[in-house]
Amino acid sequence: MYSITIKNLGKSIKVGDKETILSALRRNNIIIPAVCGGLGICGTCRIKILEGDTTKPTEREIVVLGNLTEKGWRLACQAYALSDLIIAVPVLHSKKSKVRKIKEFEIDPDFRIVPIDLDHDGHISIEEILIAGLSKIGLNLSEVDICVLRSLASFSPGKNVVLSYGKAIATTDKMTGYGLAIDIGTTTVAISLRDLIGGRLVDETSIINRQTVYGMDVISRISHCRNKDGLAELKKAVVETINVSLNKILKRNNVSKDEIYRVVVSGNSVMTHIFLGIDPVSLGRLPFKPVFRRMMHVKAREIGIDVHENADVITLPLLGSYIGGDLVGDILASDFLEYENSILIDVGTNGEVLLKKGEDIYATSVPAGPAFEGMGMRSGVIAKDGAIESFRIVDGHIVEYSTINNESPIGICGTGYIDILAELINHRVLDKNGRFSQASNERLTIKDGLKVYIVEYSKNTVTGEDIVVTQKDVRNLQLALASFKIATKTLLTEAKISLDDIEKVIIAGDFGYKINFRNAIRIGLIPPVDSGKVQFIGNGSLTGAEMVLLSRKFKELASKLIKKVRVIDLRKHHDFQKKFIESLTIGWE
Amino acid sequence: MYSITIKNLGKSIKVGDKETILSALRRNNIIIPAVCGGLGICGTCRIKILEGDTTKPTEREIVVLGNLTEKGWRLACQAYALSDLIIAVPVLHSKKSKVRKIKEFEIDPDFRIVPIDLDHDGHISIEEILIAGLSKIGLNLSEVDICVLRSLASFSPGKNVVLSYGKAIATTDKMTGYGLAIDIGTTTVAISLRDLIGGRLVDETSIINRQTVYGMDVISRISHCRNKDGLAELKKAVVETINVSLNKILKRNNVSKDEIYRVVVSGNSVMTHIFLGIDPVSLGRLPFKPVFRRMMHVKAREIGIDVHENADVITLPLLGSYIGGDLVGDILASDFLEYENSILIDVGTNGEVLLKKGEDIYATSVPAGPAFEGMGMRSGVIAKDGAIESFRIVDGHIVEYSTINNESPIGICGTGYIDILAELINHRVLDKNGRFSQASNERLTIKDGLKVYIVEYSKNTVTGEDIVVTQKDVRNLQLALASFKIATKTLLTEAKISLDDIEKVIIAGDFGYKINFRNAIRIGLIPPVDSGKVQFIGNGSLTGAEMVLLSRKFKELASKLIKKVRVIDLRKHHDFQKKFIESLTIGWE
Repeated sequence: MYSITIKNLGKSIKVGDKETILSALRRNNIIIPAVCGGLGICGTCRIKILEGDTTKPTEREIVVLGNLTEKGWRLACQAYALSDLIIAVPVLHSKKSKVRKIKEFEIDPDFRIVPIDLDHDGHISIEEILIAGLSKIGLNLSEVDICVLRSLASFSPGKNVVLSYGKAIATTDKMTGYGLAIDIGTTTVAISLRDLIGGRLVDETSIINRQTVYGMDVISRISHCRNKDGLAELKKAVVETINVSLNKILKRNNVSKDEIYRVVVSGNSVMTHIFLGIDPVSLGRLPFKPVFRRMMHVKAREIGIDVHENADVITLPLLGSYIGGDLVGDILASDFLEYENSILIDVGTNGEVLLKKGEDIYATSVPAGPAFEGMGMRSGVIAKDGAIESFRIVDGHIVEYSTINNESPIGICGTGYIDILAELINHRVLDKNGRFSQASNERLTIKDGLKVYIVEYSKNTVTGEDIVVTQKDVRNLQLALASFKIATKTLLTEAKISLDDIEKVIIAGDFGYKINFRNAIRIGLIPPVDSGKVQFIGNGSLTGAEMVLLSRKFKELASKLIKKVRVIDLRKHHDFQKKFIESLTIGWE
Repeated sequence: MYSITIKNLGKSIKVGDKETILSALRRNNIIIPAVCGGLGICGTCRIKILEGDTTKPTEREIVVLGNLTEKGWRLACQAYALSDLIIAVPVLHSKKSKVRKIKEFEIDPDFRIVPIDLDHDGHISIEEILIAGLSKIGLNLSEVDICVLRSLASFSPGKNVVLSYGKAIATTDKMTGYGLAIDIGTTTVAISLRDLIGGRLVDETSIINRQTVYGMDVISRISHCRNKDGLAELKKAVVETINVSLNKILKRNNVSKDEIYRVVVSGNSVMTHIFLGIDPVSLGRLPFKPVFRRMMHVKAREIGIDVHENADVITLPLLGSYIGGDLVGDILASDFLEYENSILIDVGTNGEVLLKKGEDIYATSVPAGPAFEGMGMRSGVIAKDGAIESFRIVDGHIVEYSTINNESPIGICGTGYIDILAELINHRVLDKNGRFSQASNERLTIKDGLKVYIVEYSKNTVTGEDIVVTQKDVRNLQLALASFKIATKTLLTEAKISLDDIEKVIIAGDFGYKINFRNAIRIGLIPPVDSGKVQFIGNGSLTGAEMVLLSRKFKELASKLIKKVRVIDLRKHHDFQKKFIESLTIGWE
């Protein structure tokens, strides 16, 4: 048993003799990424040993980290302590949705709080008196929830009844009611608190999904569900994530949990299944079916969220196995439905493309890898302070870039990679096949036997390492781009529609706050349309959940989307493999 | 700290220095009656000290027990141990409903178990495939319960879906399904297990309601709910009562709890409120309103009964504050609704009388006291083995009686008191004002300064005490009879109907298995009609619950009864007091 001091967190933990450092961190609830779930292949759990002895780097670590191991970098999943240690860990910071675009819409939440009078002389029950009183003010109920009955028993004058979606769900002595929109991302959970009467945005926050300790992508989450209690662990992890964050919001806004009467949750299919306690294993094996698709409606007490026990909890419907409620959120939050013909591309580890043609919606999904989310990339970071989010080369050789919140550079996020890729091609540092030029360039050099392009030199970076793009990084980006491209092209073919007829192309995704549309088109992430036709909505999932929370109309619209969607399975296209290889060329054609 | 050995149970328990013997018994889950909740006034917690020293009898004990205290009888709520003790306690035995009349009715439970095939190629969810499959066999569902979705996730071939009331509520690999009818009496809980497919009665049992440790009548239960956690304690007590009994039934019939998909519960208003976790306090204070009246429908997991977690739990509706689901059971189980004009009298601590005139049902309730249930009576017992259930005087002085199951006599139950009262009046041992005759009678004697009539001499009884009827007992019976009489007469007046127009008089109640109609009429318990018009149904509550369990028609009928009932409040009749005093004369007029 040794102690490990985590310098950048100011914490100390104990590690057992036969325990990896990753395991010790997890056990102490210090959440660091671990995409592959501890197999030593993704490199995301890297830590820096500042002082102390550890086991020698494994072969896998040398493959993944190269000469970084000589500088004390290790994979937490591979390293064991041989003495007390001082280390630094890459904790995932929560981020603020600084530029979230909240669509204007009519607030019509079907929610009200009504004072009631229980004086009545007849031989009827308190429930019937309440119903009769509500009927006098034009509210017709046939019954009230048993939770309300329980609170009516000790009813004192001056109380009010809470009506949500035409049902009496609670009693209260206040006249305030709040709702939550929650976007459960595989990596990040975003929460916004809204006034359910007027719709006002009270507060919002985001926090890392505690499920990340079980692996970073949905496939590893599904795998974890195959373990005994695996589903319960994952459900607990996300509920705790929500509750911890929620309690902070409530405290700083002086709102009590019992004032929250409605929760709308948006997430991909796997996240939504797990949140509801429904095993997602069928999503991970042939024939890859979700257990349900419809908008689900449960009570908060059945889930365990710290809100009023009888609050309505609604999940956005799933359009398909890998086209989840987050996409429904994107649809609502964007102008997708407002055009006759439009395309929506959600850039994520799992990429989704939707194409609207008249009343039909064609949809497909592709595993694109997490490159645009900065994962699996030598200098990749998620979109957080200090991430390089835009980049250009001026006068052929001067590099200019900006970082999120103008913090010192820590790495590159998705929008940064879009610009870098486009600019390197524009300046012939990279060819369309993704190979670095043979021509000399002061930023092009060899590291660990591989060509790399230096975006920023170590002397200017927070980590003290060069911020680079490697040949392998370019390959990862190419694979992702090929996925989006083939998905979009296939839908255009399936829908028998020409790109010229597309009036709007929407980009959604959690990979930066500013996107250069021309560069995105240049590298083929989105099809070549007039940049005036492109809309960037960032993470539409949370906004979509808010719209369902606050609008009867959008709630109804969301639940009807299932019927309009035709899911196209790319793998069933016989020439998929051939097309995919052709698509690796950077650019649309 | 002393030890107490309870000889008739073969158990030993510990009692603290400052703890009554009642408290020690309760703590050890030895349930003995305690009508008044430990105030020393009802006499129901009497025990016999066989060996050892106790504190001296209190004044209250002397009032209640008379010279019995000299023979070692004590009230457990008043006595403290002064040494180790050996005692005997009057444990309430469970009884079998030996002659329960189960009405013939069409079995139509709206329940089925259907094999399903989840093979489907489309991009829809498992839920939608299930719904599509069911629609092919004519079953139209719009969605399935989330519990079913949870079980569908790991669905393997060869399983079946359970459909109850048109909803998919579970999956199973068996083709069997069972239902429970439960009658929650204030004193006794009766349970019957029925095959939900064919309706067959599989087994039945009854057990003492564990709530009795908190007092024997509904008023003491309501009082207990005013304590912190009181409601939760009472709810737990009844749920445990059900679960313990249920587990025995299931074991001996080799049925698993997960095969039970429906539960129908019948009980008075207070029992029903508590069972559902709804505070009954409003039933115990002005204006004496129930929180609800309708048929409630909840899920088993919300209550905690050991059946399938998603089983439907239905409670029979309440017709008024003191006209509960047990009366609905009586109505269903009897011929009450089958006649144009009829009367139903439910004889209990709380008496209820219903009068049907055409489509209207008039109803009232009266606190009648527990005399006919054998409580508060010197030799009273509930209807159990050895209880004197019929009685007659032959040739003017020879006493003949029968006991339940022909066991040696232990005391007198309700039907016994009916016969005794009638026979004593017939033979002028008692006059119509309830006074014992001055004429000499070998069985009429003085005990503790009071006249008593000896029904059986001590040498022939189990307890070694005379079985007697005291002047006080007669008064208690008179008060009860006056209550039923005034209730019935008031309803006749309210409904403006003559007794001649009444086609059927139904008697319900848990006070014996045989009833002598002529004697019941003689003493004025029921109005003077031709004895061919009288129907005795015993405890109709359980049978009514079974009918709702197994018949869609009776379920619907039960829930519609609320609308037909007009509750008459006797206390609001200005001459109630005067009428009551007049009614004390034994007999109808």
